Amino acid sequence: MPSFAACGAQNSRLLSLRLAQVKSGEAEGIPSNESVIIDEETLQRDLEKAIKEEDYVRAAKIRDDLRLLQEDSKAAVLSANTRFYNAFRKGDLVAMNSIWAKEDHVYCIHPGAGRISGYDLVIGSWEIMCGAEHEFPLQIDLQNIEVHVIGDVGYVTCLEVVKTRGSSWGKQMATNVFERINGQWFICIHHASHINM
Amino acid sequence: MPSFAACGAQNSRLLSLRLAQVKSGEAEGIPSNESVIIDEETLQRDLEKAIKEEDYVRAAKIRDDLRLLQEDSKAAVLSANTRFYNAFRKGDLVAMNSIWAKEDHVYCIHPGAGRISGYDLVIGSWEIMCGAEHEFPLQIDLQNIEVHVIGDVGYVTCLEVVKTRGSSWGKQMATNVFERINGQWFICIHHASHINM
Repeated sequence: MPSFAACGAQNSRLLSLRLAQVKSGEAEGIPSNESVIIDEETLQRDLEKAIKEEDYVRAAKIRDDLRLLQEDSKAAVLSANTRFYNAFRKGDLVAMNSIWAKEDHVYCIHPGAGRISGYDLVIGSWEIMCGAEHEFPLQIDLQNIEVHVIGDVGYVTCLEVVKTRGSSWGKQMATNVFERINGQWFICIHHASHINM
Repeated sequence: MPSFAACGAQNSRLLSLRLAQVKSGEAEGIPSNESVIIDEETLQRDLEKAIKEEDYVRAAKIRDDLRLLQEDSKAAVLSANTRFYNAFRKGDLVAMNSIWAKEDHVYCIHPGAGRISGYDLVIGSWEIMCGAEHEFPLQIDLQNIEVHVIGDVGYVTCLEVVKTRGSSWGKQMATNVFERINGQWFICIHHASHINM
């Protein structure tokens, strides 16, 4: 798991990188009010071009920028994962509604249960989960968090150690998949399963 | 789930589309031996450009091509999912090794178990799964298959109804995530969990 202090420093450098790119775009006649975000594919293409042209100094710089961008995306996905669990901990349905992608292809597999598909039914299942049966806030400790991002998809896997006051739910493994939609990360899959111990 | 006959017809049209693009590329001085694959982002950009220029005839055509490309990717991901389950059914470790992405970030969560991460350990877990404990071929029926693709990531969710000869393992929900690496789809997550019934 990346250090968040390190991510902060990287974000500052990435911001400069973005601003530099916007300025360079303006010089080429791109309107300044247009959002210019450097994407991985563009950098990847630039990298291949630099290598082909044997411009290894430029290639090394692009490779660094690519790494920064990927670390930046990882931090953003981890932050979305944190928002998801905070909503769960508090039983905060408004926050829960806003973190799910409003799409038909989203789904949820709660421990021991089948698949619940589509935004409306998924949110319905969280209404039950966040209902009167449990006392909020829940205690949910996350352990062994791993994150991986490819383009506009990121996935997090972690061990959920969940406890309600005075009782124990035990441990669950979770796979959470996130999609970047209009620059923002939303959860689209939550698959949690009990660990037999 | 899309009809495979429909996918076949779509693939033929997509092939023509690719060839047309290669020819158009050649005319612009791109070497003919270079592999030119139309990607979603390029089409998406072309679509936005066409809409901006109010060329709605071209926009409609690009939108159709985009849909075809997405359907084509779905068929390729479903085919990778089939290869994964065929390897599992037969206990074919050679096939199982070749379908997993050879990366550190791949992982497997077998029913009731924790996370096994990294290619070597994941393959090690399949060596145990495909070992002497079960009689192969296994009977694994897949139901309610759903597939979604975004760029180079595709995910399949399905209900696994698994039976060994004479006994029953019951039902599991599976989330399988695939990545496209150098044009080929590999599995990078298999998360399966028992359904309590």
